[in-house]
Amino acid sequence: MAGMKYLHTMIRISDPQATIRFFNLLGLKELRRMDNEQGRFTLIFLAAPGDESAQIELTHNWDEQGYGEGRNFGHVAYAVEDIYATCQRLADAGIPINRPPRDGHMAFVRTPDGISVELLQMGDRLPPAEPWASAANIGHW
Amino acid sequence: MAGMKYLHTMIRISDPQATIRFFNLLGLKELRRMDNEQGRFTLIFLAAPGDESAQIELTHNWDEQGYGEGRNFGHVAYAVEDIYATCQRLADAGIPINRPPRDGHMAFVRTPDGISVELLQMGDRLPPAEPWASAANIGHW
Repeated sequence: MAGMKYLHTMIRISDPQATIRFFNLLGLKELRRMDNEQGRFTLIFLAAPGDESAQIELTHNWDEQGYGEGRNFGHVAYAVEDIYATCQRLADAGIPINRPPRDGHMAFVRTPDGISVELLQMGDRLPPAEPWASAANIGHW
Repeated sequence: MAGMKYLHTMIRISDPQATIRFFNLLGLKELRRMDNEQGRFTLIFLAAPGDESAQIELTHNWDEQGYGEGRNFGHVAYAVEDIYATCQRLADAGIPINRPPRDGHMAFVRTPDGISVELLQMGDRLPPAEPWASAANIGHW
């Protein structure tokens, strides 16, 4: 039961460009990338700046599209410094805010392949503010 | 794009006792637990000792059983100090080692609800050793 450390959560992606754009808008940066010509896949690792030891790994199988979603997986969660600013940046880029941060505390968005991402306000919740306070849910997450 | 931090990966579980046993055998410890009587669910947070800022969250919905699995989610990954010892502990407890660490470097196991967990040897790979070197794959992961 000696040393053990969380490394990453891996998700499969259909569209690297759209998915990397999503995570960049969220605030994650690409750390490294590996193309495997023989296996016809690409691995891309991202993390929040300053938090590089906890990564997300994207697997793009070049010949596969459209991964089904199951309910055994829930979400990956990140704390953000200003949940309104993060959601606004995503919304401005056309990404639905499935569960808007009405409470100044929590939001849910989804990657292009339907992986749920929970956003939690760092520290105390923010005071209620429009357009979020009255924003309706969109779809599920 | 200011501060941002990975918090946890959430998975849904059907059997808290079996799932906590699985993660304890892996080396994770329970940090906290919240029962919500009204919503009829329990949240359980675990992490590797010394790595408490990267957690796994288990959601047990009391009235749900058997979550389907999708391929958009891949796995969660942990580095372990001795991949053979970790796999032996799991195998001794009757947990299949789906992808045995034949290479002294990588193994895959699955939670009772089919969530894949990747184990990676910290540092250099270990020298090949039985019973792992000749162990066959079991199912998928």
